[in-house]
Parts: sequence; C-alpha cells; structure tokens
Amino acid sequence: MKEELALFYQIFTTTKDAIERFMSMLDPVIEHAKDDHERLYYHHIYEEEEQRLSRLDVLIPLINKFQTEKEEKDFSPNNNEFNRLLQELNLEKFGLHNFVEHLDLALFSFTDEERSTLLNKLRADAYEGYQYVKEKLAAINERFDHDYVDPHAHHDEHHDHLAAPGTPPAANEPNKRRGFTVGSLI
Amino acid sequence: MKEELALFYQIFTTTKDAIERFMSMLDPVIEHAKDDHERLYYHHIYEEEEQRLSRLDVLIPLINKFQTEKEEKDFSPNNNEFNRLLQELNLEKFGLHNFVEHLDLALFSFTDEERSTLLNKLRADAYEGYQYVKEKLAAINERFDHDYVDPHAHHDEHHDHLAAPGTPPAANEPNKRRGFTVGSLI
Ligand SMILES: [Fe+2]
Ligand SMILES: [Fe+2]
Repeated sequence: MKEELALFYQIFTTTKDAIERFMSMLDPVIEHAKDDHERLYYHHIYEEEEQRLSRLDVLIPLINKFQTEKEEKDFSPNNNEFNRLLQELNLEKFGLHNFVEHLDLALFSFTDEERSTLLNKLRADAYEGYQYVKEKLAAINERFDHDYVDPHAHHDEHHDHLAAPGTPPAANEPNKRRGFTVGSLI
Repeated sequence: MKEELALFYQIFTTTKDAIERFMSMLDPVIEHAKDDHERLYYHHIYEEEEQRLSRLDVLIPLINKFQTEKEEKDFSPNNNEFNRLLQELNLEKFGLHNFVEHLDLALFSFTDEERSTLLNKLRADAYEGYQYVKEKLAAINERFDHDYVDPHAHHDEHHDHLAAPGTPPAANEPNKRRGFTVGSLI
C-alpha cells in the first residue's frame, strides 16, 4: 500500500502543477474570447479545473498523512479515514479522466506548436496517471473486498474510449459509447 | 435540520430527473455530431453529468437515511457519517453549479423552441437548487462551527456570476472573474 501511496502522491502533485499550467493557458483565451459563448466555454472548463485544484489541496496532504503516519493496520475498511481516502481517490480518478478530455478539447483549438506541445505533454501525464489510479483502485478494492461499493464501477467500463498518449484526440471515438444509454444507468 | 434535509432530498431528486432529460437531449446530438470535436464536446458534458448521476444515486439514499432514521444528536461534527453527508452535499453544490453552466452552453446551440423551453426550465430549477444548497450549507457550517474547513469556500466567492433565472445565458459575464488568478488559489 505504501508503494501505491507514493505513486498516488506523485501523480496528484504532478496533475496539480498541470492544472496551474493549463489555467495559465486558458486565462488569456477567456480574456480575449470572441463572444459570450466562447468565453463561457473556456471559463467553465477553467472553473471545473479550479474545483479539482481545491479538492487536490485536501487530498494530497491526506495521501501524505497515510504515507508517513499510518501503518498497514490502518489500511482497513474499518478505518473511516481510509474509506474517505479511497472515496476521494475514486473521485479524482474521474477528475483525471475529465482533465484528459479538457486537454483533448483544447487540442482541437490551440493548434499552434507551443501550446499543442505543452497540451500533449500534460495529456500524456494525465492519461498515464488516470490509468494507474484506475488499475490500483480496482486492485485495492478487490484486495480488501470490503463493503464499499464503487458507485462509478459501471461507468468505468465505458471509459476505455480514452485514446492512449500519442493518439490524436480525434481518435478518442466517443461514439464507441453505443449501447451506453441513460436507461442502463438507473 | 430535518427541514433542510427534506429540501435537499427534493432538490437532488429533481436534478436527477433533470440530468436524465438533458442526457436524452444530448444523445442524438452526439450520435449525429458533424465532426470529432463536436462529438467530444457533447460527449464530455454527457459523461460529467453521468458521473454526477452516479454520485446522486449514493447521496439521495444518504439524505433519506438522515431524514428518516437519524435524530438531532446525530447531526454533529463528531458523527463521521454526518461529516460525509456535508462533504457530499458540498460536492453536489458544485455539481449543480456546473449543471447550470452545461445548460447555458447548450442554450447557445439548441435554440429551437422545444429544446430551449426545456433547457430554460431545467436551468431555473438547477439555479434555484444551487442557491438553496449554497446558502443552507453555509448556515449549517456556521451553526456547527466544527473543524470542517470547506476547501471550496474561496471558490464560492467567485460564483456569483451565475445569472438569475430568466436572464439570458450571455448575461452570465464570466469575465467578471477579474483578479481571480491562479496565484490567488494557492
Ligand atoms: Fe468539463
Ligand atoms: Fe463541464
């Protein structure tokens, strides 16, 4: 568990820095938006990443606390704080997934070399982080076999449309979501 | 507290239904998107609302549990489950806020009478729900004066740009975020 925690810490520290770089890129775009629609669009993405940043400000110290102060016996479903950690990690797994898509959306518009190079780098990190967090959380949930039911488990099955790094965003094929109807979620 | 819980229950039940109606509207738009960019854009919003729907499937029964099984003494910061309830409510306050913006973005594109009428109705409900949840959570946090620090409190101050119902989405003026820089968040 300590090994996973060390990597979670690294992934979320990296993504926190990535959010800040992405926000700095969005800032002038919002400022100089050509109309209200464009402004709301980028501002909305900005705010969602800002919300994620605020949550990471709480999650990163929590990961660090488990990494430095806790022992194996604390990594138990009987420990409320550990359950909270798993829930927050699960939420931020989706945060990473959504970030990959925010970057893909930006890649459609910011096609100049400077911005697209940075966006592709941030995307590669976020994608790798997402895959790691997703795999490890699945393994942890299985290992503990506790009564925590991942409310997003169903959702996850549909997330394999995220393209691997290096694949152009157009290849994400969100249209692979066939059969993935509102009804199947209820 | 029982009174607030009854309204939270109603707001989140209403918004759950609203998500499903919004997803049904997005479904054919994603299916018939004119290119990959447009498809990813609507699919991304669809997924974020789907994630919210999954969280509401957990939150609504939790609200109901507090409403029906718990007594005033359980509404205490010493109760882990109550703290979890407050945290989830805080997260879904942002969920409602983001939903208002998703609807505003859709209102820019879906201008036909049938869809815009429905979108405006959903937006009015979501906006009202957001305001209620925001006010009540602030009051509850103050009443208990517990050690739970709202990690989004800073963020909230910047959310008053959401226009009141009836105001056209263009009036949201996200450009009011002046002075609201990445640096001020750290
Ligand atoms: Fe988003
Ligand atoms: Fe969004």
